[in-house]
Amino acid sequence: MPQPRQQPVPQVVRAVQWSPDGALRIVDQRRLPLEYVERDIDSPDDAAEAIRTLAVRGAPAIGVAAAMALVQAADAAHATRDSVRGAADLLRATRPTAVNLAWALDRMLVRADATPGSIHEVAIALRDEATAILEEDRRMCQAIGEHGATLFHQGMRVLTHCNAGALATAGIGTALAPVYVAHARGVALRVFVDETRPLLQGARLTAWELARADVPVTLLTDGMAASLMKDGRIDIVIVGADRIAANGDVANKVGTYGLAVLAHHHKVPFVVAAPWSTVDGATPSGDAIEIEQRDAREVTEVVGTRIAPEGIAVHNAAFDVTPAALITHYVTDRGVQRAPFHLDVTSAELPPPA
Amino acid sequence: MPQPRQQPVPQVVRAVQWSPDGALRIVDQRRLPLEYVERDIDSPDDAAEAIRTLAVRGAPAIGVAAAMALVQAADAAHATRDSVRGAADLLRATRPTAVNLAWALDRMLVRADATPGSIHEVAIALRDEATAILEEDRRMCQAIGEHGATLFHQGMRVLTHCNAGALATAGIGTALAPVYVAHARGVALRVFVDETRPLLQGARLTAWELARADVPVTLLTDGMAASLMKDGRIDIVIVGADRIAANGDVANKVGTYGLAVLAHHHKVPFVVAAPWSTVDGATPSGDAIEIEQRDAREVTEVVGTRIAPEGIAVHNAAFDVTPAALITHYVTDRGVQRAPFHLDVTSAELPPPA
Repeated sequence: MPQPRQQPVPQVVRAVQWSPDGALRIVDQRRLPLEYVERDIDSPDDAAEAIRTLAVRGAPAIGVAAAMALVQAADAAHATRDSVRGAADLLRATRPTAVNLAWALDRMLVRADATPGSIHEVAIALRDEATAILEEDRRMCQAIGEHGATLFHQGMRVLTHCNAGALATAGIGTALAPVYVAHARGVALRVFVDETRPLLQGARLTAWELARADVPVTLLTDGMAASLMKDGRIDIVIVGADRIAANGDVANKVGTYGLAVLAHHHKVPFVVAAPWSTVDGATPSGDAIEIEQRDAREVTEVVGTRIAPEGIAVHNAAFDVTPAALITHYVTDRGVQRAPFHLDVTSAELPPPA
Repeated sequence: MPQPRQQPVPQVVRAVQWSPDGALRIVDQRRLPLEYVERDIDSPDDAAEAIRTLAVRGAPAIGVAAAMALVQAADAAHATRDSVRGAADLLRATRPTAVNLAWALDRMLVRADATPGSIHEVAIALRDEATAILEEDRRMCQAIGEHGATLFHQGMRVLTHCNAGALATAGIGTALAPVYVAHARGVALRVFVDETRPLLQGARLTAWELARADVPVTLLTDGMAASLMKDGRIDIVIVGADRIAANGDVANKVGTYGLAVLAHHHKVPFVVAAPWSTVDGATPSGDAIEIEQRDAREVTEVVGTRIAPEGIAVHNAAFDVTPAALITHYVTDRGVQRAPFHLDVTSAELPPPA
């Protein structure tokens, strides 16, 4: 029976939350799918390490986690306004591509600057701001899910890449949010999941959270998506975004661009789903987005075992850029935009969810 | 200093050869790149197991290995013409997609049928035929290398997928043969190697054999090729083939079709290199090629470690089909054909190597 629209879809997992005693609690995503382990983060140093090693990952989730970790900087013994600013710099430097991290930290620093009085008062204000960011993220996910679900019909076969699910946000995800909403409304979907080498977020995380939510999943290696599209077995592709440039170009997990070319070739809709905070009006196009290069061992080793010979060069760009021309729909918390992308939309201009 | 054309390029590794006492000797490719282990195969049963588990793999190499193993069937105690035929059936059933396996076994059975006398005489004739197949394979590789090297220029950046190198043949390979010939002639190339999930033949085998031959290698995951092409960092793609249909459609390792679409989109030449024995005139188009589906654990596990949750569906097609329209050149031992593919060419009609 379809649920009423207003009722939020329950989260299959809480990737980022406050612990009962007010610490930053994360699910350690390096341990999934073999073990489910929650971890409380004690300091901005620990948080930076958790973000850098991908214990917490996903553009929205690292923005929320960094904001929550900054509260701990203000709560620490001998904290000063300068030490809070230093902690923000440390956190900002962990991952260069996603815009949400800088966006969340900037918002926290504005709040700190706007708060007169002692560092204790700053800490209280920052906790309030981080909680607001956390709750807004959850609402944004829900809104993305509501809007995006209008693109899904009974029986559709959906392809996704990497993890833009609950594990990548504080809520029900970005690219997976419409899947969860549709599933909760009784729309039967099957999600084909690219394993997403090198770090296997599709196999380890997306397959895990969808299976946990009883959404039918088919796992494939990254090289198999093309022939599935050729055989007419994929109806729609939906992915997240680490940054959307002003012209609609999208930086996302490496492999996304290739999928977009394939979807274009096979006339399969290619949908990007992300919170509006991912839109970076200051970046004119994808060419201006810095692409993070990561350690060669992510490619030459899999789950700790060496798979390649010693002494060879390795290419390990973590992201790629998909030109706006290959994207058919943008789903944000403001609604569904059919291409072309417009920077200056408000939800009022977009058609409401069906 | 360029070498004269006539001098064969030395083999960096012999994947399939006769042992000094006349057994089938293979390099156990499941152990590479961590260990280099040669193994002598004692019987057609052992050979079938080695082919099935990919200890020996690559379309030309499994054809040669199956022919050599059939000699052992005729050499065995209590061998009969029927038991040789039974061994051929067993070997033929190991891998359905590559045509070379059936081609080599058929040729061996024709020779057996044409040999009058005792099973001992059949065994002698079959050893002669298998040796001829082995040596022809080496010469075919050399010819493919000579012809294909005409497509390579100084400084080119070549992308390849899976392993169509020395390890996939009895000689210097198919897709990699032109690389070895060009390299031996002093043409500097860099080879970008797709790791090729699920079985990582690119990372484990291609990177290993190219590095062993001192050819510069850059390893990447399968999802990274698209952005390298977009950035203008790939000049040509060359892959092998498990079967070429009469219309020029090509079955090859899964992921090949996606690369062909990407190469087409980026206007990068897409070259298929294979012995003429890979051409199957009896298969009108790619639609008629049986695609082998392999065990889900190849996807859900990497080097023996589980990377995906339990209880999900898995897609594991080992091959895909690339339509002829996406292929710009076919390199066979008969020469280089620019598209469109013609089934009825002889080397006399093709331009000689430069």
